[in-house]
Amino acid sequence: ADVKKIAVLGGDGIGPEVVGEALKVLKKTEELFGYQFETEHALFGGIAIDEKGTPLPQETLELCQTADAVLLGAVGGPKWDNNSKELRPETGLLGIRKALGLFSNIRPATVFDCLKDASTLKPEVLEGTDLIVVRELTGGIYFGEKFRREGANGEEAVDTCVYNVQEVERIVRQAFDIAMTRGKRLASVDKANVLETSRLWREVVNRVAVEYPEVELEHVLVDNCAMQLLRRPSSFDVIVTENMFGDILSDEAAMLTGSIGMLSSASLGEGSFGLYEPVHGSAPDIAGQGISNPIATVLSVALMFRLTFGYHDAAKSIEDAVKNVLDAGHRTGDIAVDKSQAIGTTAMGDLIVAAM
Amino acid sequence: ADVKKIAVLGGDGIGPEVVGEALKVLKKTEELFGYQFETEHALFGGIAIDEKGTPLPQETLELCQTADAVLLGAVGGPKWDNNSKELRPETGLLGIRKALGLFSNIRPATVFDCLKDASTLKPEVLEGTDLIVVRELTGGIYFGEKFRREGANGEEAVDTCVYNVQEVERIVRQAFDIAMTRGKRLASVDKANVLETSRLWREVVNRVAVEYPEVELEHVLVDNCAMQLLRRPSSFDVIVTENMFGDILSDEAAMLTGSIGMLSSASLGEGSFGLYEPVHGSAPDIAGQGISNPIATVLSVALMFRLTFGYHDAAKSIEDAVKNVLDAGHRTGDIAVDKSQAIGTTAMGDLIVAAM
Ligand SMILES: CC(C)[C@H](C(=O)O)[C@@H](O)C(=O)O
Ligand SMILES: CC(C)[C@H](C(=O)O)[C@@H](O)C(=O)O
Repeated sequence: ADVKKIAVLGGDGIGPEVVGEALKVLKKTEELFGYQFETEHALFGGIAIDEKGTPLPQETLELCQTADAVLLGAVGGPKWDNNSKELRPETGLLGIRKALGLFSNIRPATVFDCLKDASTLKPEVLEGTDLIVVRELTGGIYFGEKFRREGANGEEAVDTCVYNVQEVERIVRQAFDIAMTRGKRLASVDKANVLETSRLWREVVNRVAVEYPEVELEHVLVDNCAMQLLRRPSSFDVIVTENMFGDILSDEAAMLTGSIGMLSSASLGEGSFGLYEPVHGSAPDIAGQGISNPIATVLSVALMFRLTFGYHDAAKSIEDAVKNVLDAGHRTGDIAVDKSQAIGTTAMGDLIVAAM
Repeated sequence: ADVKKIAVLGGDGIGPEVVGEALKVLKKTEELFGYQFETEHALFGGIAIDEKGTPLPQETLELCQTADAVLLGAVGGPKWDNNSKELRPETGLLGIRKALGLFSNIRPATVFDCLKDASTLKPEVLEGTDLIVVRELTGGIYFGEKFRREGANGEEAVDTCVYNVQEVERIVRQAFDIAMTRGKRLASVDKANVLETSRLWREVVNRVAVEYPEVELEHVLVDNCAMQLLRRPSSFDVIVTENMFGDILSDEAAMLTGSIGMLSSASLGEGSFGLYEPVHGSAPDIAGQGISNPIATVLSVALMFRLTFGYHDAAKSIEDAVKNVLDAGHRTGDIAVDKSQAIGTTAMGDLIVAAM
């Protein structure tokens, strides 16, 4: 039988608890659809710093390298915030992306009907919003040379933003491919009026665009995009951009849906391998209380099924189950209007499993 | 008598027409308060490219250098978008900032009561929003070395982000000073978990903070700030950040107020000299039709009076006049609910002058 191996990195804060519920859903899929999964846990992030002295231990990386996909909870917390760079959870995150070649971060920003009142945007503005941000994840200013030096005016710090044609081309091509499966509209975001990397970016986009005549392409400056996401969110379909801009805009886009506790993401490389994680962070303030919302992580499993394994039937079963549970009125605290009626993490997980 | 010299750069698109109304207001101030102004016009932006072959002609720069303040309309338009770098309006903008040492861009994001329905945010979320973004304007990735080179994987582009201690210190100090005159809360925005320039930034902020024990300081990561502006806009007082982040966040902040046609900005250096301009752009699509909203430019004059000349009486007279005209229900097309009742650019300017 075709056993899929999944590396499970619970991480910090609420990470392990939300991942726990996602694993119940995974198990239920095995029963219902006959798929087979082998899951193996490993240390990552703050907990790995505490137990192994590094946020990305060698054995964790090796596990991921031999797995078909990675399920990640979340990393980070105040405990490690003041550590030196090598001993911070984020360094593990950047390290795993680079080591696994995950050059593309895909973040759907969907408005869940039952949650549209949770957004700070007016419902009529949000109406019909369903966009995906495709963010380049292993290049740009995140990974360029960084250093301090003595300058003419005292100490200075330097970060370098570098992109080569090939790096831009592969992410842009992927974004066009995704646009072809959806609304066939692509917004490429850059700062071509100021940055050389953006001018290279735009040249590549225009060249690749010729191969996708059906896709309606617009170039949007990053500052304008930050505005247009607020003004006309529903007009976007796929947004593609470089690493730093994508970090900012994908968070803005996620927040405006009002559904941030529900949003999943995929980090992909060449081939079908991928790392899946909820968009929300490790929420150290509520960790261990059993009140976190597992839905984003559960939906990350569905995304894994679609993008890495092609198990569309199982993905749909999960997505429908989530929808049914929400339609029946069940809510965790973060999305409950009446907090006194909120259910806990495991109760939500159990309901989803039962609804599959 | 103390005659103040103002360099007037109408620029492109709706720039000249909105500046025209602001000049009427300036004239009225002379009559009402006895202040004296000498205004001199010069070419800047696209029109300077057309007439002089460069977006920032030497005589324009010299005029600004001998002036006490600069009033700018807006620059840019599709006509020049595909020009080479030296022949683009933005290059003039970056050039004038650098040449005049305007290291600080101050953008109030205020919600005008009569316009709060124009925002895409829910009124209850927006309630009480009144923040200022202080953006570093002559450093960072905007002005660092940029070039192309052949790399191991073909052609690559490079941008360099550089900040020295002194550059960070002067803008941060100014932001603390502004916070002291307002709500005494400062949010410093960086990406210290990834960038070396951000780590330097944060060190300087923490050091300067010691001198301002009354100011409540928070460090906010840029991606989180893009979210928090949407979630809790009214909780911000002063936001200070580096050039690129400030470009993005100040536009996001301006848009969420719903009042973008009303917002003015100041670019300041050492001393009292400043360049004042509306936040909105050159709007080439409506240029020459006489329908643009002059209020942001009129309010830029008020800001000039406050920050450069210390003419607080005249500033208040302008601000009150704008408020009264709006309260009386007069609207230009961009802010009118019933577009058929909208008035034109000069009518709006005349009403403001009459109300002073
Ligand atoms: C933790 C941080 C390094 C990371 C990033 O900036 O990429 C995070 O914000 C994200 O978006 O996954
Ligand atoms: C036109 C452009 C170069 C400029 C900038 O990015 O600074 C503009 O967006 C602004 O904010 O004034």
